Amino acid sequence: MQKPKALFFDVNETLLDLNDLRSSISQALGGRDDLLALWFRMLLHYSLVETASGQFRPFGQIGAACLQMVAKNIGLELSSEQAMEAIKPILSLNPHPDVQSGLKRLKAAGYRMFTLTNSSFEGVRTQMANAGLTHYFEECLSVEAIQMYKPSTQVYRWAARRIGLKPEDCMMIAAHGWDVAGAMWAGMRAAFIARPGQQLYPHAPKTELETKNLSELVDKLITIPQ
Amino acid sequence: MQKPKALFFDVNETLLDLNDLRSSISQALGGRDDLLALWFRMLLHYSLVETASGQFRPFGQIGAACLQMVAKNIGLELSSEQAMEAIKPILSLNPHPDVQSGLKRLKAAGYRMFTLTNSSFEGVRTQMANAGLTHYFEECLSVEAIQMYKPSTQVYRWAARRIGLKPEDCMMIAAHGWDVAGAMWAGMRAAFIARPGQQLYPHAPKTELETKNLSELVDKLITIPQ
Repeated sequence: MQKPKALFFDVNETLLDLNDLRSSISQALGGRDDLLALWFRMLLHYSLVETASGQFRPFGQIGAACLQMVAKNIGLELSSEQAMEAIKPILSLNPHPDVQSGLKRLKAAGYRMFTLTNSSFEGVRTQMANAGLTHYFEECLSVEAIQMYKPSTQVYRWAARRIGLKPEDCMMIAAHGWDVAGAMWAGMRAAFIARPGQQLYPHAPKTELETKNLSELVDKLITIPQ
Repeated sequence: MQKPKALFFDVNETLLDLNDLRSSISQALGGRDDLLALWFRMLLHYSLVETASGQFRPFGQIGAACLQMVAKNIGLELSSEQAMEAIKPILSLNPHPDVQSGLKRLKAAGYRMFTLTNSSFEGVRTQMANAGLTHYFEECLSVEAIQMYKPSTQVYRWAARRIGLKPEDCMMIAAHGWDVAGAMWAGMRAAFIARPGQQLYPHAPKTELETKNLSELVDKLITIPQ
């Protein structure tokens, strides 16, 4: 196995714990915290609805609209302001417990690291600052630059070009089956972190690496010879 | 309001009742029929994941893969054969109670009618035959022809061209916010049927017509002068 020349990290769920959103989403939905997974899946769906239709608006605005729709399904009316307020804690999610030490070891091993996220520029910068992770990344890349959502092929190819590399020299690291699938279909390498509730897509090519957490992944990445 | 020259109908949930899938999905998921909505949203998401990545496989295969993922999340292993078997009732869904009479009245009023569905060719033909609706449609169009999923702009433009019309002469009729949004962004007209649990997308343009069921929509469509 050859050492990747750069690592791209997905942010929401891969580095940061989305469970920190549970209480505010639940509060907005009258206590229905079982709807968190449905809301997030709807957000992912509608982000691609926008891209498939040649549209673009920031992830937060799509997330708020989806929360309004989920609320309406259970007979609740949320204004767009109330919905924006309910998802605001997405900006101050805690990193998973293995993230600080994992990124530190990768940085020490000389890896170039970037985010590649569906969050907006301002969103990811705020998220990284609040989680204390900013200094590990050479740059925080957001799909906002290219105005298309992951896993569009164009996003991964743009990201590689943007940092002066070919897709095959880069590795996407994500806890989402669709994200590693899209990266590989775009020509990148990929590693999957099997966070709780996350699964590989059965129709996708196999990722090179699959681990239970970031620590295990780091163990493997730092032993690859130059 | 001008009379549309053709009507395109979404099939799953708009004409046919997806609740008929509830028992087989629930059985495959150890009784968790609350996961039906999450599974269907995941299927919609992954169909666009395929399109965004330049891939295509039939809707049923994506649906089975998503069911395997949902099952794994709750600690169950389903083979792809078991998953295909669990979603098989999608081929024999019953039409909503307002559908037979609604389509009959539209046909009598001289409307040209087509399906435009994410289901495969074989899927939609079987669905329409089993529901006794085949004879209302001039042709059953499926995204399988263009190998991209709704709501990709290309799908609606292809469908209009395919029947010799401009998008603005056609009306998409669907119970999904994302479907009417995509149709309008592609230049078609659109009508929304608010089936239970279905919502318009707050960021989309307003549909011309929005009704609680197909009967009400037909009342409006048949009174438009030629």
